[in-house]
Amino acid sequence: MSVNMEQIVALAKHRGFIFPGSEIYGGLANTWDYGPLGVELKNNVKRAWWKKFIQESPYNVGLDAAILMNPQAWVASGHVGNFNDPMIDCKQCKARHRADKIIENALDAKGIELVVDGLSFDQMKALMDEHEIACPDCGSRDFTDIRQFNLMFKTFQGVTESSSNVVYMRPETAQGIFVNFKNVQRTMRKKLPFGIGQIGKSFRNEITPGNFTFRTREFEQMELEFFCKPGEDMKWFEYWRAYCRDWLLNLGVKEGSIRLRDHSDDELSHYSNATTDIEYRFPFGWGELWGIADRTDYDLKQHMEHSGEDFNYVDQEAGNEKYVPYCIEPSLGADRVTLAFLIDAFEEQKLEGDDSRTVLHLHPALAPFKVAVFPLSKKLSEGAQAIFSDLAKSFMVDYDDTGSIGKRYRRHDEIGTPFCITYDFDSEQDGQVTVRDRDTMEQTRMPISELKAFIESKLQF
Amino acid sequence: MSVNMEQIVALAKHRGFIFPGSEIYGGLANTWDYGPLGVELKNNVKRAWWKKFIQESPYNVGLDAAILMNPQAWVASGHVGNFNDPMIDCKQCKARHRADKIIENALDAKGIELVVDGLSFDQMKALMDEHEIACPDCGSRDFTDIRQFNLMFKTFQGVTESSSNVVYMRPETAQGIFVNFKNVQRTMRKKLPFGIGQIGKSFRNEITPGNFTFRTREFEQMELEFFCKPGEDMKWFEYWRAYCRDWLLNLGVKEGSIRLRDHSDDELSHYSNATTDIEYRFPFGWGELWGIADRTDYDLKQHMEHSGEDFNYVDQEAGNEKYVPYCIEPSLGADRVTLAFLIDAFEEQKLEGDDSRTVLHLHPALAPFKVAVFPLSKKLSEGAQAIFSDLAKSFMVDYDDTGSIGKRYRRHDEIGTPFCITYDFDSEQDGQVTVRDRDTMEQTRMPISELKAFIESKLQF
Repeated sequence: MSVNMEQIVALAKHRGFIFPGSEIYGGLANTWDYGPLGVELKNNVKRAWWKKFIQESPYNVGLDAAILMNPQAWVASGHVGNFNDPMIDCKQCKARHRADKIIENALDAKGIELVVDGLSFDQMKALMDEHEIACPDCGSRDFTDIRQFNLMFKTFQGVTESSSNVVYMRPETAQGIFVNFKNVQRTMRKKLPFGIGQIGKSFRNEITPGNFTFRTREFEQMELEFFCKPGEDMKWFEYWRAYCRDWLLNLGVKEGSIRLRDHSDDELSHYSNATTDIEYRFPFGWGELWGIADRTDYDLKQHMEHSGEDFNYVDQEAGNEKYVPYCIEPSLGADRVTLAFLIDAFEEQKLEGDDSRTVLHLHPALAPFKVAVFPLSKKLSEGAQAIFSDLAKSFMVDYDDTGSIGKRYRRHDEIGTPFCITYDFDSEQDGQVTVRDRDTMEQTRMPISELKAFIESKLQF
Repeated sequence: MSVNMEQIVALAKHRGFIFPGSEIYGGLANTWDYGPLGVELKNNVKRAWWKKFIQESPYNVGLDAAILMNPQAWVASGHVGNFNDPMIDCKQCKARHRADKIIENALDAKGIELVVDGLSFDQMKALMDEHEIACPDCGSRDFTDIRQFNLMFKTFQGVTESSSNVVYMRPETAQGIFVNFKNVQRTMRKKLPFGIGQIGKSFRNEITPGNFTFRTREFEQMELEFFCKPGEDMKWFEYWRAYCRDWLLNLGVKEGSIRLRDHSDDELSHYSNATTDIEYRFPFGWGELWGIADRTDYDLKQHMEHSGEDFNYVDQEAGNEKYVPYCIEPSLGADRVTLAFLIDAFEEQKLEGDDSRTVLHLHPALAPFKVAVFPLSKKLSEGAQAIFSDLAKSFMVDYDDTGSIGKRYRRHDEIGTPFCITYDFDSEQDGQVTVRDRDTMEQTRMPISELKAFIESKLQF
């Protein structure tokens, strides 16, 4: 792979995709603001998910639950009790680390592959002693004990900061779906199998966020909870696993950039029948994009137990058999997959002679601008602006009248605009414009009246 | 006005628009979850805003800044120091009130109109004594002193809960725009005048949230900050005020349902040249939907002072004149305007005979489903499903094959589906279907091949 993270971060910053958060105040940990092109890209990613997972699906409907939920929901889900990372401090330099991560990295450097996640604190401590693992920052081996650190952000609702007013910023969107299972099923008159999808922000107080937008404390999720009859879960697990993979490939992700990794029995959550991670080959290594899990009836049963609500489903097509549905959960990070699309699309391309260009081969459905309109001369602005105004009713269009046409092409190659339209003096007469393709760099003449349909046809996936 | 809030809340709950948040756990204060139809409606509202304020505007670009910002941004904006409500407790029944609100309500009941906002605590206390204002809950006049209550939710970022780790959940999206003024201007090579728009969640720890989704602690904003040359600000203020009003009217809000209320000199913030609220006539009274304010150069200058960043703009078209731009801010609540659209569309309509129907006259661009497909008989499902699959590539479509056609019409009238398509036995032969209009209830035969273009033409606004 030729692209490195520095190139992506630099392009993102200089071309208005992603800026450091609160930059004028020196930033805030690993927060990021999506600039004018970034917000279009990310919105397109979210729309592409909604289109395939909600709009076109005969099974699924959407939801948008509040970020602030009754804290009992997080007791039921297990997050209050178990959503912890093992934390350790270096007594020498005061650096704080995730114990599992420094162990994994140290063993990795020795060529030992080991999944530390799931080991007890004593087992981790033993590994640190055995392998003489030191602080990555200062080299000291003088550590505190390993302690639990709960990853939920908490705040106080209402006017007193007492423990009875603690609420959490949701660490995942999924629970907002589970608690509404009956509301949705009843009001939409849904029969199994059916799914509920949601896009929204979640927050995790990660000890060590990093790798640009890959791991941030504030992030956005696109989650589907798909409910089905117990026993049919593995069939649907495979259906959604393939559906997710196809979504990535249909939107232009290269087959070699992703891999499907099934969780081993050791790694599986106690309630899960099967879990597969779709991983993307980031410049810093393989990283999880999409977790597809068969969660059985675990979540609905937890909420039944804690709330007293009855989540049994009466299956009229199976002689009124009563059961708690099983659930398949494909959970995708919107920021992560947006980053993956950016990286996958990036190319430093050598051209004829000594020429070269930076180009983002984004699928037209994802590209921030679908088209850019160039008047060949500022004298032609009236006709060119009419094209802009007309096309802007249907999609994001840029209007660019500065510098040579060649410079404008390069500028739009770099931000992934799939088509550039040049309006020249002939256009005034023949009603045709030159359409230039980002990827092939080929130019064709086309009637202005055909532009909209042409571009729309390219947005399909 | 015939509609009352109970009707709207009931419809919202029973037809899958809006559910009480965390309902199975007894809810959480005034939080609400958007159900399958609510999320479509609200997404359509947000898309309609983005389309007119960003996509079609030759001036504006978008942004999506993080919810968590460096706390210094909130010092500069004045929120740490001044974003307070006057709070008072009843010593008798322990109820907590906003002092300004109980004074306003008490005076209002006596027929006295007075804006309490902006008075000092002493002045408020004097008013309470003078008018013998009592606790609205228990009637006692035994109150605590009036105290300041800061409305920002705070949380702790990182692994220690020390004051140095306090961060706030943003109380408005606007500051995320101001801090990025230079980043956006530079990367997008923008010249004045230009605007930056943003849609996103904000949080305010309101003492007394209420009126359904009108005032909630978690809410979503659609804000534009439009930067221009000082002296041209009043021209642009009027431009955007008219643009906002037209947006509402073009999306079907009745002219009599809104009014524009200019702030008096007393009411204006010290830095504002002019402010107009667009108010909507809710069943509980006139309420602010949209605040359009000329904020002068106040915000950029505050951030210049606190960050050291130079936000001067060099005006090349005015002989390199250097100045800090003025800013016009139209700020709209996504939840409030969604509620207004729901209320404005609602009708209990008397029909011929003793018949009646509930109908939501939502603009087709806002309607959750653009069209519903009905097979006249389950034997016709193959052809009807083919129409569903084809149209679902372009917009949200429902498929409904239960109950009589008349019942299906009523069901879709109530959720605002503008067109219902019935696929009957003739359709198998002639490739035509019956299209029924929600508002006129007229039925016309139309070729299946023309459906997509017909519906698309109705989505324009």
